[in-house]
Amino acid sequence: MTATRYDVIGIGNAIVDVLARTEDDFLVRHGMQKGTMALIDESRAQAIYTAMGPAVEISGGSAANTIVGVAGFGARAAFIGKVKDDTLGQVFAHDIRAAGVGFDTPPSFEGPSTARCYILVTPDGERTMNTYLGAAQDLHPNDIVEEAIAAAAITYLEGYLWDPKHAKDAFLKAAKAAHTAGRQVALTLSDAFCVDRWRDEFLNLARSGTVDLLFANEAEMHSLYQTADFDTAVKTLRADVKLAVVTRSEKGCLVVSRERVLEVAASPVARVVDTTGAGDLFAAGFLVGLARGADHTRAAKLGALAAAEVIGHLGARPEASLKSLAQENGLLT
Amino acid sequence: MTATRYDVIGIGNAIVDVLARTEDDFLVRHGMQKGTMALIDESRAQAIYTAMGPAVEISGGSAANTIVGVAGFGARAAFIGKVKDDTLGQVFAHDIRAAGVGFDTPPSFEGPSTARCYILVTPDGERTMNTYLGAAQDLHPNDIVEEAIAAAAITYLEGYLWDPKHAKDAFLKAAKAAHTAGRQVALTLSDAFCVDRWRDEFLNLARSGTVDLLFANEAEMHSLYQTADFDTAVKTLRADVKLAVVTRSEKGCLVVSRERVLEVAASPVARVVDTTGAGDLFAAGFLVGLARGADHTRAAKLGALAAAEVIGHLGARPEASLKSLAQENGLLT
Repeated sequence: MTATRYDVIGIGNAIVDVLARTEDDFLVRHGMQKGTMALIDESRAQAIYTAMGPAVEISGGSAANTIVGVAGFGARAAFIGKVKDDTLGQVFAHDIRAAGVGFDTPPSFEGPSTARCYILVTPDGERTMNTYLGAAQDLHPNDIVEEAIAAAAITYLEGYLWDPKHAKDAFLKAAKAAHTAGRQVALTLSDAFCVDRWRDEFLNLARSGTVDLLFANEAEMHSLYQTADFDTAVKTLRADVKLAVVTRSEKGCLVVSRERVLEVAASPVARVVDTTGAGDLFAAGFLVGLARGADHTRAAKLGALAAAEVIGHLGARPEASLKSLAQENGLLT
Repeated sequence: MTATRYDVIGIGNAIVDVLARTEDDFLVRHGMQKGTMALIDESRAQAIYTAMGPAVEISGGSAANTIVGVAGFGARAAFIGKVKDDTLGQVFAHDIRAAGVGFDTPPSFEGPSTARCYILVTPDGERTMNTYLGAAQDLHPNDIVEEAIAAAAITYLEGYLWDPKHAKDAFLKAAKAAHTAGRQVALTLSDAFCVDRWRDEFLNLARSGTVDLLFANEAEMHSLYQTADFDTAVKTLRADVKLAVVTRSEKGCLVVSRERVLEVAASPVARVVDTTGAGDLFAAGFLVGLARGADHTRAAKLGALAAAEVIGHLGARPEASLKSLAQENGLLT
């Protein structure tokens, strides 16, 4: 096996977040299910934007947030995702490159505009997301550079990629290239409704070994196995995939492998401002730990640390140096 | 005098801020003078953006920030300023309207893109600004709706308006319409370098009574009178204009009138995150106090309260309800 060029390469929807604070009744009035992600078309996007309060634009996208977190720990990272060559596409490309991430996917020059996610943050810090996929719809297997995948210790994919029409083919091409090169493939289940749309295919990815490592939160795991019983779900998950991490917000996480189920506590947070990106940044820390040869406990602690940083402020990209935070906490040298 | 429709109407450059954290050496390397505003052309804008770190886009513009603050106190507010009908122009228009401000200036459909201000925030919370004026260059006297000006208790103008080519004519038209209707005209000096560019004209505005109320920070006042001696500057200012407020960061402010010089303390701030908008929001509180008939001490306290809110987070638009803050502090009913 040749040396790696990247610790982690991520593939996902390239999205700019449009974040605004709101009250709970706004969600009710606009038929939004709190804490979840809904796919919306352009006219619904326009209606939501007109109704919502003053906003802030920050680059987002689940896997993109994770990869920026990976780079924030000082690890080597790259991202594949589709924007249009418009203002928000330029913003996305600037921000991810400025974070130290390799990003070479050519933008589209025609068709729908760069993807946007309208995120409503309620006073409890919970976020409710409405995604207009736009140009992210056009991610194509041709955009997967096999040499880059083969040069990454871990290829990280988001479940949301099952929504755009050609992206699942891109996903499968990347997974194959990674395994051919003897690398690892990780997947996040993304969202309970996303699991609901693609349950059988996700189960098949796990059971067939297309995916070596699965990230899920409790709601996604319950959705995957259509059970309200936590222990049953964990038991099934353990049989289905080599390694899984189940994140449980302030209750910490479980690292589930054939050998054992390991519990790791959450990191303390002074004040939860905005939970956007909590799962994404947890994955960043865990992947960095894994790529750098840390054991599962230390990898989970790195994940918890990054998640705690991102929920302390608005937006899903870290504001502090994750590398310094990890060093201060004795988790990285 | 007829009843007012607005407490304050503001006229200024309509700008979207592109904010990033940076270290002091970035400013040195790129020849930026810390704490000031520099006008830049498109190629310099591109060079700065390429070099700067991951950013956040938030609507800005000095007078626009002030007017959003005015609306945040629950007062009636409108804004006049020029954007292009492009993505950032739509962002600016959305954000100011969503804040409850009347904004009806037609956008331009050709010519340069919406103005952007690249703001570098150093670890001490100080901001250094680089403004590409773009479409804001095209504010024209035709954009001044005299009926709206006549219906506002106070017309508030920014010194930065002296930079775009037709904006000073728009400025003078607005001041005349306000005075014809028996209303008040307020001006902020904006920036020490801006004062340096337009010193004689600003002094003339004050001395001729075109402006009834002047806002300045210490650096701007020293620049206006080209003196390092604070007391001399205050004495001259007192002779030149009916009412002036000199803001002095953590030292509070002076309210300078023919009758007396009043000192008002700053509001406490837990942690200075980003000073962008401190002066703008001070003006918001003071103007609301004045429009609502408060005395100068109470008006200055409202200003200090709004300034303290905005420097506690990233960006120049308030995140908390200024109305609630003012009520909790017994400054508004």
